[in-house]
Amino acid sequence: MTAEPGVGLGPSAVESVLTRYRDLTMARLLSDIPDSAEDELYSLVRDYPSRSGKGLRPALCLAVCRALGGDIEKAIDSAVAIELTHNAFLILDDVQDGSEMRRGAPTLPAEYGLGVAVNVGSATNLLALQHLMANRWALGPNLAWAILQESALMMRHSLEGQAIEVGWIRNNACDLVDDDYYRMCMKKSSWYTCIHPCRVGALVAEGKHRATARFDRYGCYLGAAFQIQDDLLNLTGHYSRYGKEISGDLREGKRTLVLIEYMRRCTAAQRARMERFLGRTRAARTEDEVRWVRDELLASGCVETVRARARALADEAHREALKAFDDNPDSEDKQFLLDLPYYMVERDS
Amino acid sequence: MTAEPGVGLGPSAVESVLTRYRDLTMARLLSDIPDSAEDELYSLVRDYPSRSGKGLRPALCLAVCRALGGDIEKAIDSAVAIELTHNAFLILDDVQDGSEMRRGAPTLPAEYGLGVAVNVGSATNLLALQHLMANRWALGPNLAWAILQESALMMRHSLEGQAIEVGWIRNNACDLVDDDYYRMCMKKSSWYTCIHPCRVGALVAEGKHRATARFDRYGCYLGAAFQIQDDLLNLTGHYSRYGKEISGDLREGKRTLVLIEYMRRCTAAQRARMERFLGRTRAARTEDEVRWVRDELLASGCVETVRARARALADEAHREALKAFDDNPDSEDKQFLLDLPYYMVERDS
Repeated sequence: MTAEPGVGLGPSAVESVLTRYRDLTMARLLSDIPDSAEDELYSLVRDYPSRSGKGLRPALCLAVCRALGGDIEKAIDSAVAIELTHNAFLILDDVQDGSEMRRGAPTLPAEYGLGVAVNVGSATNLLALQHLMANRWALGPNLAWAILQESALMMRHSLEGQAIEVGWIRNNACDLVDDDYYRMCMKKSSWYTCIHPCRVGALVAEGKHRATARFDRYGCYLGAAFQIQDDLLNLTGHYSRYGKEISGDLREGKRTLVLIEYMRRCTAAQRARMERFLGRTRAARTEDEVRWVRDELLASGCVETVRARARALADEAHREALKAFDDNPDSEDKQFLLDLPYYMVERDS
Repeated sequence: MTAEPGVGLGPSAVESVLTRYRDLTMARLLSDIPDSAEDELYSLVRDYPSRSGKGLRPALCLAVCRALGGDIEKAIDSAVAIELTHNAFLILDDVQDGSEMRRGAPTLPAEYGLGVAVNVGSATNLLALQHLMANRWALGPNLAWAILQESALMMRHSLEGQAIEVGWIRNNACDLVDDDYYRMCMKKSSWYTCIHPCRVGALVAEGKHRATARFDRYGCYLGAAFQIQDDLLNLTGHYSRYGKEISGDLREGKRTLVLIEYMRRCTAAQRARMERFLGRTRAARTEDEVRWVRDELLASGCVETVRARARALADEAHREALKAFDDNPDSEDKQFLLDLPYYMVERDS
């Protein structure tokens, strides 16, 4: 029997596994970016990956592969592709949102303009595709193709999830319920952040003969816990730890679980004022208004409610991991996957 | 022996082949876009392809396939992927350039904002990938993989070419020579517009046993003739025919062959004034200045020089086609490919 909540590896052990797999992935990722004697394309492709993120997605892929007895050397190109795809999303998100800061430094569009940023984002996606194509030599054509298909499916969910979120902002959706959020979150975040890395790690370890979908529930709960904590940090975090503009989500009018909870609880007058705020364009939202919205949300008690929801999701993810890895022997990787949900909701960056 | 310049099918016959292949490609392209009950993602993916373009790229792919004795039904997924990739470039170009109009209607970013436009561009690229993956069933895994590799190579050239052009604008390059332009143009335009469609059409018709590179010189000259004519139309065309903002390239500071020719011929005073104009950001370039630059270029005689250059490139492309298709029997498709260079440089839209 594996550890119960809170008696696993603890945050520092989770962090050390994350760091190890991140460093492994980053070394391969950076060494495979072409040299750029003549233009800024490839040197800028290095920029975001070099701003040290947590490396959560490649770590999930590699840890699942190893926990199932697989060889991580065979999963490394897929892990690099996952991390590159994530960085391409970040670049294009910063273009879409007009964000100023990312991981403690100016965003690519803020520093180099839209033209350069869009091009670097596309090149980052292309490099991800090239790593998926390199799988053909290490894994054979059939498994390489299966992982390519998983990657296309992941892109589809991510873009559809993004379209849902952007559509809510554009159409000023004010009557959302929790299930709307969870569905959007599953498509926009959980799939590419958790479900896809687990599926690919399992494919590399076991081939196509076992159901790679047995980690989907784990990935779904884990991804929701991760995204909700991200939303909370955007609202309550410290800039020096978090690296993004605090309240950026409010400025962009994002529909978070805290906002949905507030809209359910608030008075008619508060609701009318919030709907007016949400109905404006980003450029028309003043800093005073953003501060008012933030104060309202913090005073409402909704943050605590949503934080408890994230902890419950972490418990669910932990239980799902216990089931999914029941047949596999205890290992550091398995323990990492069991403990990761709690790390997700306790992190402050 | 096939026709000499000017005694081939003539423009209306070229147009009728273009139209036939465009309609065939569009029917498949549009029918394979998922229905979008709940969000605007897929309905907006339909938008640009539905604004009737010339369909040059899929027509090249299908005509080469058929001129070599291939079955165009086997090339149609690749042709659709090529047209989708082109549309994704258009969307992201409009995001990068801040363009207002495209094919006679507002651009996606102008009408729906950056967030929606970037997402629709990404979804368009994803649909292209899905068509390339569908090749596996019609063409087998090896040929499907070869076409996927060609597509990755095409993306690489296009993004590197785009980076060169964007870099010139950012760094205010004012000492470019014709060869700089031709190299950028080969990577940014010719590869995806001509070389890649020809290579893919040949791969489908002949498999991997013949050198698909034997059309590269044709594609290179044809693409340069096409791009130069596009630059000329942007400077001298009529909005009602051309569908884009006239002088948009000047507003963006693009380094066209006309501009490079002008910088070589002009006086020191003209050059200093032009360098100041080019050194400003797009937003800082006034309409009066754009009009001055346009008048300068038109009065300089450079347009006529460059137009003659495009005609010479069309002659080269025609000669290369004669060589490349020497072994193949005369056919409507072969004649179309021989005549296409002249159509390229004579078109007014």
